[in-house]
Amino acid sequence: MTKKIVLTGDRPSGNLHIGHYIGSLAERVRMQESGDYEMYILIADLQALASANDSAKVKSAVEEIVLDYLAVGLDPNKVHFVLQSAVPALFELPMYYMNLVTQARLERNPTLKDEVKSKGFNRDVPVGFVYHPISQAADITAFGAHLVPVGADQAPMLEQTREIVNTFNRLYGETLTMPEAKIPAKEQSRLVGTDGNGKMSKSLGNCIYLKDDAGTVRAKVKTMYTDPNHIKITDPGKVEGNVVFAYLDAFCQDKKLVADLKAHYRKGGLGDVGLKEMLSTLLNDLLEPMRVRRANYAKDMTKVRDYIKKGTKAAIDKTNTTLAKVRKAIGIYQI
Amino acid sequence: MTKKIVLTGDRPSGNLHIGHYIGSLAERVRMQESGDYEMYILIADLQALASANDSAKVKSAVEEIVLDYLAVGLDPNKVHFVLQSAVPALFELPMYYMNLVTQARLERNPTLKDEVKSKGFNRDVPVGFVYHPISQAADITAFGAHLVPVGADQAPMLEQTREIVNTFNRLYGETLTMPEAKIPAKEQSRLVGTDGNGKMSKSLGNCIYLKDDAGTVRAKVKTMYTDPNHIKITDPGKVEGNVVFAYLDAFCQDKKLVADLKAHYRKGGLGDVGLKEMLSTLLNDLLEPMRVRRANYAKDMTKVRDYIKKGTKAAIDKTNTTLAKVRKAIGIYQI
Repeated sequence: MTKKIVLTGDRPSGNLHIGHYIGSLAERVRMQESGDYEMYILIADLQALASANDSAKVKSAVEEIVLDYLAVGLDPNKVHFVLQSAVPALFELPMYYMNLVTQARLERNPTLKDEVKSKGFNRDVPVGFVYHPISQAADITAFGAHLVPVGADQAPMLEQTREIVNTFNRLYGETLTMPEAKIPAKEQSRLVGTDGNGKMSKSLGNCIYLKDDAGTVRAKVKTMYTDPNHIKITDPGKVEGNVVFAYLDAFCQDKKLVADLKAHYRKGGLGDVGLKEMLSTLLNDLLEPMRVRRANYAKDMTKVRDYIKKGTKAAIDKTNTTLAKVRKAIGIYQI
Repeated sequence: MTKKIVLTGDRPSGNLHIGHYIGSLAERVRMQESGDYEMYILIADLQALASANDSAKVKSAVEEIVLDYLAVGLDPNKVHFVLQSAVPALFELPMYYMNLVTQARLERNPTLKDEVKSKGFNRDVPVGFVYHPISQAADITAFGAHLVPVGADQAPMLEQTREIVNTFNRLYGETLTMPEAKIPAKEQSRLVGTDGNGKMSKSLGNCIYLKDDAGTVRAKVKTMYTDPNHIKITDPGKVEGNVVFAYLDAFCQDKKLVADLKAHYRKGGLGDVGLKEMLSTLLNDLLEPMRVRRANYAKDMTKVRDYIKKGTKAAIDKTNTTLAKVRKAIGIYQI
């Protein structure tokens, strides 16, 4: 049986946090270990440039994100770390796909609309931003991906890719692989930030990073939003909207224990301090092996850069095969 | 003194006609012979794909257009024939430039607005079409072009390029060369079609092609629109809107002779038949050496293809130099 091809990745815009871990990295490690997939992990530095405009940060972030990958247990001998900006097909394919999509269709994309709104753009949105779904279609199809793990909010982006695949194959014959979205279970999809104000996000400053040391994790957990009306230990407490319980739900494997703690908290008699101590320990138990791995890899950054080179080389070969098929199908003049 | 770099070119969408010759090809030959320029002639097959969607035609048109170039006297040892789709930098640079332009600015482009209207597009305009000015900016800047010969109607396209150069250099430091438009003298800018209905254009079927044989040229001149009220030779005739005189203005070097003929025609006594015979001879005298050159080159198409390879190789080297500078300026991660 040939392995299913999976394309996943991240914009290198800062270190990854435990929200990324629970939302996607843990699943990537599971998929890696299953041995059922050929996985390409795209370090989307072009997309980071499109939204950041701070290229110096993007540059250093590339190595940091690979250290994060290595830390969680992604293995360069089992998956490919791919630098987007070094893969020629990812520049070329969009130029063909953009003839297959109307401007109106592009702007109707709900994910794009949300992002344009959330970034405060209006008609002053950069072309690169509007164009992103086409670039994404190139990324996905270049690898011939069967599966694309995406958040539920990103699903319409994949719809655009599927439409492009449909149109291309109809016009030029069966050439591109039709990808499927792999949407995570709801509880994993978005981890709330430590302040309880929406999802964990670097710009909100409410993150616990994978590379945070044990003391930092404890300090962040201590400031975590719980139930402001739970003053005395004996008071009944609220579990809903309580960040500590949200994290226990996400990270504690012992679901029975979490249910008991919730009942106890609701009734009264369970204090925040003890609960937070418990969560800190739980998180540090999860993060400690990552810190060790990270520190080991960080000792030899030349080797880390070699992993990026190796994965990118594999990606160039893979995507050039698709590109050759696309050029042949369209009938590009070969010199 | 270093030579000024000139970028010019055509979409390979059919054979070139005498309107192309008078509008741009003749000037290219003059620039070539002056020895003052390093000229890259871009065979814009990507742009042809964007507007044609008939890739098989685009493919064969590439070799035909190079035969047209060779026929008019463009010399592959003095200028570079460049196949756009084979030059990687032309795919990559747009991805960086599109972050520097807003969607609103792109859609305000008057040339684009006109073309969208003339093609009958509305909101169903393909993204590739809207995006064209960015791709064009990549073409021009990749070669570091100082001069870009454009029709007056194309001048706003170059303005978009100049804005991108300005923005890029402001953000990332002096990197890109600022191009200047080279707009032809008005009389050369647009040759009217043989039917007098607007400019010479393949889609209107009113062209005299560079490769037309002598008999075809005579036949086309015979059907040429003159003055419908000029029935008898002795009648006074109208020179304005008379295609024969438009062509004499464009192609006859002897301006005194043309002035005398106009006066005679206006007064009466000068017949269309004789005038057309004269114009046919004039055009065939111009085209005959082109036909000979064309036939000679066409005997060895392998050699013709080698000219494209050679020019494209030079273009890849040239544009990769620019690309390296751009990547360095932006701070793209180098693996």
